[in-house]
Amino acid sequence: MRPVAEHAAAVAALLGPTAAETATLADARGRVLAEDLVAPHPLPPFANSAMDGYAVRSADLAATPVALPVAADVPAGRTDGPPLAPGTAHRIMTGAALPEGADAVVQVEWTDGGTEQVRVEQAVDAGQNVRGAGEDVTAGQVVLTAGTLLGPAQIGLAAAIGAGTLRVRRRPRVLVLSTGSELVAPGEPLRHGQIHESNGPMLAAAVDEAGGRGELLRFVPDDVEQFTRTLDDALAARADDPVDLVLTSGGVSAGAYEVVKDAFTGRGVTFSKVAMQPGMPQGAGHHRGPTGEVAVVTLPGNPVSSLVSFEVFVRPVLRAAFGHPQPERPRVRARLAEALSSPAGRQQFRRGRIDAVAGTVAPVGAAGSHLLAALAHADCLFVVDAQVTRVEAGESVEVWLLDG
Amino acid sequence: MRPVAEHAAAVAALLGPTAAETATLADARGRVLAEDLVAPHPLPPFANSAMDGYAVRSADLAATPVALPVAADVPAGRTDGPPLAPGTAHRIMTGAALPEGADAVVQVEWTDGGTEQVRVEQAVDAGQNVRGAGEDVTAGQVVLTAGTLLGPAQIGLAAAIGAGTLRVRRRPRVLVLSTGSELVAPGEPLRHGQIHESNGPMLAAAVDEAGGRGELLRFVPDDVEQFTRTLDDALAARADDPVDLVLTSGGVSAGAYEVVKDAFTGRGVTFSKVAMQPGMPQGAGHHRGPTGEVAVVTLPGNPVSSLVSFEVFVRPVLRAAFGHPQPERPRVRARLAEALSSPAGRQQFRRGRIDAVAGTVAPVGAAGSHLLAALAHADCLFVVDAQVTRVEAGESVEVWLLDG
Repeated sequence: MRPVAEHAAAVAALLGPTAAETATLADARGRVLAEDLVAPHPLPPFANSAMDGYAVRSADLAATPVALPVAADVPAGRTDGPPLAPGTAHRIMTGAALPEGADAVVQVEWTDGGTEQVRVEQAVDAGQNVRGAGEDVTAGQVVLTAGTLLGPAQIGLAAAIGAGTLRVRRRPRVLVLSTGSELVAPGEPLRHGQIHESNGPMLAAAVDEAGGRGELLRFVPDDVEQFTRTLDDALAARADDPVDLVLTSGGVSAGAYEVVKDAFTGRGVTFSKVAMQPGMPQGAGHHRGPTGEVAVVTLPGNPVSSLVSFEVFVRPVLRAAFGHPQPERPRVRARLAEALSSPAGRQQFRRGRIDAVAGTVAPVGAAGSHLLAALAHADCLFVVDAQVTRVEAGESVEVWLLDG
Repeated sequence: MRPVAEHAAAVAALLGPTAAETATLADARGRVLAEDLVAPHPLPPFANSAMDGYAVRSADLAATPVALPVAADVPAGRTDGPPLAPGTAHRIMTGAALPEGADAVVQVEWTDGGTEQVRVEQAVDAGQNVRGAGEDVTAGQVVLTAGTLLGPAQIGLAAAIGAGTLRVRRRPRVLVLSTGSELVAPGEPLRHGQIHESNGPMLAAAVDEAGGRGELLRFVPDDVEQFTRTLDDALAARADDPVDLVLTSGGVSAGAYEVVKDAFTGRGVTFSKVAMQPGMPQGAGHHRGPTGEVAVVTLPGNPVSSLVSFEVFVRPVLRAAFGHPQPERPRVRARLAEALSSPAGRQQFRRGRIDAVAGTVAPVGAAGSHLLAALAHADCLFVVDAQVTRVEAGESVEVWLLDG
């Protein structure tokens, strides 16, 4: 069987970095800068007042209290403020440009607040309550480097230096297909032998959560010709904003009706038994569609296998593709709350709940790959290495935090 | 001055829980269940095969090898599978309904794979390779409780029990207004005395990141009448999907032109000096708009003050409003990497970078509330209590993780 790391490398090789595109500030959140962002002007752009008060020459306040005529009024945003004549003051608001000739601001609380003439009670030093031009950022400075993840503060900084749009990496577009004649859309009634399709909505949500753009294409029956036609039609319809990855679930095991395997085998996709539990049957490669080659990853059909395989193989690769600085889930170590056994030769990924305070992880549900309810109550996966068949309570295991 | 906790409580009192609404599975991710989700049918809905192989009566395999006629073929999704007659086998695929009369499945690997007649090499126990109906979920079981945050696994489980839509809490809608005649939209040229508007895009992104729906309304000049008219027009235009919170920045300090303060004072909003740095001037209350009362929080205008105030007062309340189980940022303790001083009587929120391995936090940039570049390079805030004026290197401080 193929080691997990080997299949992970095969999936990683499928997706290169996504292209750069221009995004509005509103659309840039959660994305990654494609280019260094350079400030065209300093920040603050001009020396300005840090207080509401009076712009003065500090030398004029050598002896206090002192009364000065108020020669001008400088609200924030005034673009034509006159210079300050010696022996006078300008009333000035926070953020307003410091008048030429002024070297300090007296806060209003140290004055009588006069509008014709102001009585200043306390002296200020040169530079006091003044924010110098370029104190935050100098002109030409790289304020954010390529590869920076854009959150609120980074978007605020970009706006402050005047960037109305940003060059960011494209979110990978993923077409999610579920196969299986037994599948019925949620909300529709079931007949005996049918089940509600859960992998598609689950994987599309997982793609979105990773930062990609998941789109669910339902439902593809168990027929190779129809499968291929449906896929190619979907790819052709998206030629203007092409699909980066086709993600299938189901149709890859040893049965007689394995549409995904039958459609892709010998045509660019390699199918392997991977030494893991859940998730043994895996495939990765390319499909030559009507708009060129597109990456394909085929996940197993059991819901737990499918989502665990997504976590192990697909999520880190999708995030790396758009440049996310933390492609992998946060990993910690914790002590196992109860003993468990694991099949020889298979790396086991169990669902768990972590107690960060106690430093322990407890299994949630059994190992069965159809136990979706347990998966939905887990907040982590933990890993039992391939060569390990038994882990005792208290032994340390690697834990992947699913909400990180 | 008003303690931070007191102002936080005032803001928390403004926003009640948002209403429940119906969302598609694709729109439910990151939202919170408004009602318990009950399974209308068991999961699996029927006993089915865990393997590709042959459905048998285990008693028929008492002596192996044994040859059995293959009486039927049961692919997954077959809704009319016949009962299994004694002494026969049905070829069966993973997930297909177990025929009436069968009690086990022999995996194909233990057989010769015959389609007319199958030779079985190894016996199976009753129940082997069979997933019982209801093994995962029983009919009537509450599979997810009200208040559950919906990620991929929860959406998968909801789909599996047939839920095509979910009752979730409405994302709070937040109208973000920036005030100030000095503000120019990013992308537009500056004149002397003007700055690019950064708070609006930053706060709208922060609202979205918290799970709300931020909408930026730009630009409101420094005029009370125009401010109120613009706000009321915007609220009236959104009457069908009403605004839960108006979030302003700027216009609340001690200056002569404080449009937010002038518009709201004595009309439902209380302005306070809060004992914190940055972010002293704060306001909270209600505005009686054309469609009824709407909650108002007024943040200070300096970008760092504005975002820190959002983190301290608004983010946890927004998240609690739509039921998020973790409204607050993850908080840890770390040792300060270098000594710093803090003003007496003010709870200081400094920007930092945490080194989780070393257990230390280093300040990023000075305390100044206009230093946006430092904020954009921080990954945490750390707190210096109001009564503390000096913290030595190595002392422990509370850290709020901004990427958590």
